[in-house]
Amino acid sequence: MSADSGIKKEAPKHADRIGFPVEGQELTVGGVPVSRLAARVGSTPFFAYDRALMTARVERLRKALPKDVHLHYAMKANPMPAVVQHMARLVDGLDVASAGEMHVALDTGIDPATISFAGPGKTVHELSQAVGAGIIINMESFNEMETIARLGAELGVHPKVAIRVNPDFELKTSGMKMGGGPKQFGVDAELVPQMLKRLGDLGLDFYGFHIFSGSQNLREDALLDAQQKTINLAIELTKHAPRAPRLVNIGGGFGIPYFPGERHLDVEAVGEGLEALMPRARNELQGAEIVIELGRYFVGEAGVYVSRVVDRKESRGTIYLITDGGLHHQLSASGNFGQVIRKNYPVAIANKMDQAEDEESNIVGCLCTPLDRLGDKVGLPRGEIGDLVVVFQSGAYGRSSSPTAFLGHPAPMEVLV
Amino acid sequence: MSADSGIKKEAPKHADRIGFPVEGQELTVGGVPVSRLAARVGSTPFFAYDRALMTARVERLRKALPKDVHLHYAMKANPMPAVVQHMARLVDGLDVASAGEMHVALDTGIDPATISFAGPGKTVHELSQAVGAGIIINMESFNEMETIARLGAELGVHPKVAIRVNPDFELKTSGMKMGGGPKQFGVDAELVPQMLKRLGDLGLDFYGFHIFSGSQNLREDALLDAQQKTINLAIELTKHAPRAPRLVNIGGGFGIPYFPGERHLDVEAVGEGLEALMPRARNELQGAEIVIELGRYFVGEAGVYVSRVVDRKESRGTIYLITDGGLHHQLSASGNFGQVIRKNYPVAIANKMDQAEDEESNIVGCLCTPLDRLGDKVGLPRGEIGDLVVVFQSGAYGRSSSPTAFLGHPAPMEVLV
Repeated sequence: MSADSGIKKEAPKHADRIGFPVEGQELTVGGVPVSRLAARVGSTPFFAYDRALMTARVERLRKALPKDVHLHYAMKANPMPAVVQHMARLVDGLDVASAGEMHVALDTGIDPATISFAGPGKTVHELSQAVGAGIIINMESFNEMETIARLGAELGVHPKVAIRVNPDFELKTSGMKMGGGPKQFGVDAELVPQMLKRLGDLGLDFYGFHIFSGSQNLREDALLDAQQKTINLAIELTKHAPRAPRLVNIGGGFGIPYFPGERHLDVEAVGEGLEALMPRARNELQGAEIVIELGRYFVGEAGVYVSRVVDRKESRGTIYLITDGGLHHQLSASGNFGQVIRKNYPVAIANKMDQAEDEESNIVGCLCTPLDRLGDKVGLPRGEIGDLVVVFQSGAYGRSSSPTAFLGHPAPMEVLV
Repeated sequence: MSADSGIKKEAPKHADRIGFPVEGQELTVGGVPVSRLAARVGSTPFFAYDRALMTARVERLRKALPKDVHLHYAMKANPMPAVVQHMARLVDGLDVASAGEMHVALDTGIDPATISFAGPGKTVHELSQAVGAGIIINMESFNEMETIARLGAELGVHPKVAIRVNPDFELKTSGMKMGGGPKQFGVDAELVPQMLKRLGDLGLDFYGFHIFSGSQNLREDALLDAQQKTINLAIELTKHAPRAPRLVNIGGGFGIPYFPGERHLDVEAVGEGLEALMPRARNELQGAEIVIELGRYFVGEAGVYVSRVVDRKESRGTIYLITDGGLHHQLSASGNFGQVIRKNYPVAIANKMDQAEDEESNIVGCLCTPLDRLGDKVGLPRGEIGDLVVVFQSGAYGRSSSPTAFLGHPAPMEVLV
């Protein structure tokens, strides 16, 4: 290539990897080379999560955010019991999305009063379990409130409740918008004063508010804008509360970079911006804990999905590395879970990290569907049968968000290293 | 509305429902009102499949297609053991996509030589099970062929094999294209003569060809075009075979109508067109069975997904019926499994079939994600807590294609009625 060809625009790249250092030719997870880890697991494919990366992520956030901000782990991102157990020791609370998740959370031994349960379609059976457990129920409707009050009377307890608010704004440029306009989530902000009054009449134990406006956001300004509006809304709603709120969950929404051209969120900038909002929050929310609830941001970058190449095929000039994994385990990485345009997650051949990426390959799964792709036209070292392919950014919404029964293959193992 | 307002264009509608007659106010499945079925199942949500509709579908196809065309059921569409057992008695063979599916197929008692196994990433462990079982392996690569030969020698058997061919054409306007150009599926047509030679040298027991060019197609002309090209290709390849093929699987690709504006496939027209191709096929394929392999077309319209309304909410003028089901059970109906634009599957309130559709509702699931939608802006009778919502066209690629562990809810039950 001649020196003056520099005008050629470079294709966008994946953000730099955090963790998973290479030793010799091998990628390591939790200090263990991936091929040795595969031997330990006993079968491919599998998910491997690095506990030290999760710990480091929590510590970094603690440092970046105001000292009195509480951190909760939204376990729907990765409900593996060992992960939840690990996270429970690091954070101030757990957020669950079902009675099933609640039981895993309770098994960690964490104080039930630091567990909160949100979800727009809680059944009476689920609410009964939550009331019995003494966790905080983020109420999503007036109907739910009445049911909880009835269950509390039946069980002779005062249910702990917060109100999940559907705000009148949304988190801009968010991967998933969960507030603003009509929504199935929460109670419209303008109806909350009326709900607070009824809540007091029913004698429910009021804990505070849960105001969540979106997720997977990589723009600091958008996050801070939402945080400011959220705190303002909480202050406004607090004026109608039967007692001072004990917590205000301002949601999370911190994204991680999945696709080429995306960058890591500057959490220090978010922390600085939030610090500026805190004096007013501390004062006018009358001492309520400010809670930030995160799932993906804590664990998403701490995990890899490992599958093995079972065939290498050249079809009409195109190279396919066919693995024993696929969309039945890592649906999001295949681009089929709600995405409009498929883009590649970062991938690598874990046992050839020292080799040049001199071949353009397509990494596909073992399923009989053209949807089953893990990497399109990726520059990789020459892949061979037996090689281990890793998909990064697989610590959140991987195994539990995928159709593991599809086509009758065994479910993938998971290890926390 | 005045008489001359007729110029208003009507919105496209869903195709007429086949089966599930209404008795009084209730939809029935297999003659059982849905509310009674829910009581029998013991919990919602659940999938209910109507065995009589499956039987009727097979009978209709037998009548529409040439007498000597064989029908195979691709069990990946619905691998519920009771369904596979039912289908095994009706069709001439089963097609499996994994060793897991193979075991369910073998349990039906069907002749192993009528089971075929396709899949681009078969592991050595899976191939060993298939060779041991004596089923037909649709080979997808030269590597696979060598492995099968080695396993046959080790086990002292002659493995039954067919070649899955990646044709040099594709099924036009197909929901999923699986042939034409470079593909991970099968062996490029131009390499098949070389493979046939090697296959003979290896002493493998040659059964024939599997040529599959796409799926979920609603255009008769496109299907017939592909069938003609497939038969021509099989005739060409047969000239290179070590013996006459015993079967030629020409794929399926018959679609069912999911979305407004789609219509039922005219299988009688497909049958007539295929009949015209048969004399040459019978003659030049030297007596090979012509096999049509269908999954979705046999069972897709025979199933419903039933969930219960657990909350009704009006948010800023929009009505939400929140059910205990959702995308974790019926991912495709939520529009998140590979679809680019979300459209509604047909839905109804099963216990209010006699009431006017006088309200525009949004049917959502119980998950904490805005992706969890089962029906957007659907005209329905007024929905209330306790009502049973059904999603039609849920007999194929429902439960087994969905992330049932997502958010920790119990897996849905399935019943064959």
